Amino acid sequence: MASSVVVANGNLNPNDTRGKTITCKAAVAYGPGEPFVVERILVHPPQKMEVRIKILFTTICHTDLTAWQGENEARRAYPRIFGHEASGIVESVGEGVSDMNEGDLVVPIFNGECGDCKYCKCEKTNKCERFGVDAMKKVMVSDGATRFYTMDGKPIFHFLNTSTFTEYTVVDSACIVKIHIDGSNGDLNRNIKRLTLLSCGVSSGVGAAWNTADVHFGSTVAVFGLGVVGLAVAEGARARGASRIIGVDINSDKFIKAREMGITDFINPKDDERPVYEIIGEMTGGGVHYSFECAGNLNVLRDAFLSAHEGWGLTVLVGIHLSPKMLPIHPMELFHGRRIVGSNFGGIKGKTQLPHFAKECMNGVVKLDDFITHELPFKEINQAFDLLTTGKSLRCLLHF
Amino acid sequence: MASSVVVANGNLNPNDTRGKTITCKAAVAYGPGEPFVVERILVHPPQKMEVRIKILFTTICHTDLTAWQGENEARRAYPRIFGHEASGIVESVGEGVSDMNEGDLVVPIFNGECGDCKYCKCEKTNKCERFGVDAMKKVMVSDGATRFYTMDGKPIFHFLNTSTFTEYTVVDSACIVKIHIDGSNGDLNRNIKRLTLLSCGVSSGVGAAWNTADVHFGSTVAVFGLGVVGLAVAEGARARGASRIIGVDINSDKFIKAREMGITDFINPKDDERPVYEIIGEMTGGGVHYSFECAGNLNVLRDAFLSAHEGWGLTVLVGIHLSPKMLPIHPMELFHGRRIVGSNFGGIKGKTQLPHFAKECMNGVVKLDDFITHELPFKEINQAFDLLTTGKSLRCLLHF
Repeated sequence: MASSVVVANGNLNPNDTRGKTITCKAAVAYGPGEPFVVERILVHPPQKMEVRIKILFTTICHTDLTAWQGENEARRAYPRIFGHEASGIVESVGEGVSDMNEGDLVVPIFNGECGDCKYCKCEKTNKCERFGVDAMKKVMVSDGATRFYTMDGKPIFHFLNTSTFTEYTVVDSACIVKIHIDGSNGDLNRNIKRLTLLSCGVSSGVGAAWNTADVHFGSTVAVFGLGVVGLAVAEGARARGASRIIGVDINSDKFIKAREMGITDFINPKDDERPVYEIIGEMTGGGVHYSFECAGNLNVLRDAFLSAHEGWGLTVLVGIHLSPKMLPIHPMELFHGRRIVGSNFGGIKGKTQLPHFAKECMNGVVKLDDFITHELPFKEINQAFDLLTTGKSLRCLLHF
Repeated sequence: MASSVVVANGNLNPNDTRGKTITCKAAVAYGPGEPFVVERILVHPPQKMEVRIKILFTTICHTDLTAWQGENEARRAYPRIFGHEASGIVESVGEGVSDMNEGDLVVPIFNGECGDCKYCKCEKTNKCERFGVDAMKKVMVSDGATRFYTMDGKPIFHFLNTSTFTEYTVVDSACIVKIHIDGSNGDLNRNIKRLTLLSCGVSSGVGAAWNTADVHFGSTVAVFGLGVVGLAVAEGARARGASRIIGVDINSDKFIKAREMGITDFINPKDDERPVYEIIGEMTGGGVHYSFECAGNLNVLRDAFLSAHEGWGLTVLVGIHLSPKMLPIHPMELFHGRRIVGSNFGGIKGKTQLPHFAKECMNGVVKLDDFITHELPFKEINQAFDLLTTGKSLRCLLHF
C-alpha cells in the first residue's frame, strides 16, 4: 500500500504520484437512485497487473443508470463509483504490466481481455474468463480489496471492471486498451473526446452490426431503440452498405437526429395499431435481414424477432434485460429459420481489436461527433444523469 | 377425375392404372389415438404437378405418433392417412411434371422444394413457401381437395405433404425426390429399405449435424434423446470426426444400440442427482461444442442449452415441442455466447441435395442398417406403432 498521499492538482506528473495514494475528486453513489456526491476520495496505487489512470473524459451509459437505480438487489454495493465509458492517461502501472507505460492514452473496457484464457485464445468469442463483464463484481481480482476509500478510510466499491466517475481510477491491465491517435491533424482534444465513445456504446453498437451480425452490402436492417447503441448499430449498418435501415422508437423526437445518422425509415409504435413486425414485414417484403434489439424490453424483443425474415433473418440482442422473464419465443418458431444471438461489447476483443477499430473511426468510417450532444464539468454529473433519463442527451461528456 | 377404377394387384403396370382411380389398401385413422383400420380406399390420379406413387416401404416416425395421438386439437383432421417416411416407385405423373417418370425410384419429403420461391432460391434455408412442412395442411394445394376417398366416397385427409400409410399415394411433385441407386452390388432391395430412412429421420439427424451445426473434426457433441433422429445426429457427428459423442436418455436400454452406433459416453439423468449440464460440463471442461435436443422436452432443451460451452457452444433444436411454453432461456443468457438454432429436415433442400446425400449413404458414409430393427407386413401397422411407443423399435419397416 501507499506510503504517502498526494493531492491531485489537475496536472499529471507521475513522478509526484507514482506509488502513492492519490486524493482526488470522485462521484460517489451512497444508495440506489440517490444523487451522486462529488467529494474527495483516496485512490490507492495499482497492484500487480493493474493500472492507475487519470480520467480525461467520462460519460454516462444506460448500464450506469440501471445499476445506479439498483433494481437488481443482488447487484447492489454501496458506496460505489459507477461509470465505465471513458478515456484517460496512464498515471502509473503495477508490477508486471508490460503493454503500456505512464502517459499512454487509453480507454477502459468493461469486458476485459486477459489474452490467456481459453476464450481469449478462441477467435469465436470476446468473452474473457477472468475479466469479462461481471455485474456482480465490486472488488479487484488480485486481492479482493478495493482501491478506492473514503477520506475516513472506508472502502468504496468498484463497478464493471472500470469505475470511471473519478479523477483517478485503478483498473486491471486486462481492462485497459492503449490507443494511438495521430495528432497530426491538430485536434487531439477532439479526437480524445470521440475516443471516449469507443469505450462502450459506439463499439457495442457498431460491433453488433459488424462482428455479431456481419451486416452485408445491400441488406435491410431494423433497429429497435434509438439511444446511442441503437444509433451506433445504424452507423455500423450504414458503413457496411445496408440499403435500408428502419429505426423504431416510441420517442419521435429521436427521429430528427437519427435521420442525420443514416436511418432511412422510422416507425413509432404509438402511431400505428398494427404490430411493428407486421409493418416491417410489409415494408420489406417479409422482413429484414437483421434486426437489433437495443431497448431492453421483452415485447420489443419479440417484435424484433418477428421482424426478421423467415429462413435467414437474424436478431441480435444488444439491450440489457432486467426482467426475470424468459425469451418470448416458442421453440417451434426457431424452425422457421429465424435466429437470435446476443452481442456483448459488439463481439470486439478489446485489447486486440479496439486499436484498429479506433483508427477506422478516426478515419471517419463511423461518424462519432454526432453522438456527443452535451458536455459538462464533472461536478455536474447529476445534471448529466438527468439529461440521459429524460432522453435529452445521447452522450454528455464530463470533463475534469 | 378418373373415369374408371382399377384394383391394385401388387404389381405395378402403369398401363393398367394411369389416369384411373386405384383401389388399394391403406391404414386409415378415424380418430385421435384410435387403432388404424387397414381397409381398401380409392386413390385418384395425380393432378397438375402431382405424382402418384406406389409405396414400397414405409415406417413410423414420432411425428406420426404425436399427430395420430392428436394432442394438438387444431391439427386434427379425420379420417386421415398418416405416414411420411417411405420409399416408392412412380406410378404416374400429372400434367407438367418433367423431372420424373413412371417407374422411377423416389422418396417423399414432408418438407418440399418448389425450386421457385424466394426460399428455394436462397442457399441459406431449406424452407419452401408453398410446400414446406405444414402440420395444418390436409388437402392438396392445387384444388383444395383430397386424392383419397373411402369406398363410399368420403374424403380422407392428407398428412404432412406425403401420407405414406397407403399402397398408393398422391404427392405434389415438389415433395418427391428421384433417387438413383446403383444396383450393381446386387442388393437393390436392401438399398431401397435403407433409402426409406432418408425420407425423414436419418436425414433430419445427419443433416442437423452436417448442415445446421456443421460439426467439425475433433469436436465434442452431446445428443439428448436417442431415438432414430438422435442416433442419426450421432452418426453424422461420428462421420465428421467428432472426438466425443455423449448420449443422454432416460432409457438405458438404448445405450447398447447407441454404443454400436458411435456414441462414446452415456448419461442417464435418472442415475445422477446433478443436472445433466453439470455432468457434461465436468466431462468436457466446460461444455460441448454442439448439443442437440432430440427429445421434444423443454427441461431437456434447457439442459442441452447449458451443456454447450459458453463463448461458442451451439444448441440445435431438432425435437418437436408441443407444449405452448416459451423457450426456457433468459435473454441475458444469450450474452454468454451460447447460441440456439432450429433444424428442420436437417437443413437439407430435398430435391437438390437428397440425391447426393443418398449416394453418400449408399457408399457407407453413414451406417443405415442399424436403424432398421424390425420389419412387418403393412397390415400389422398397429403392432409397429406399439413397438415405437414402447421404445422397442428404432425403425420398423412396413412392406406391402
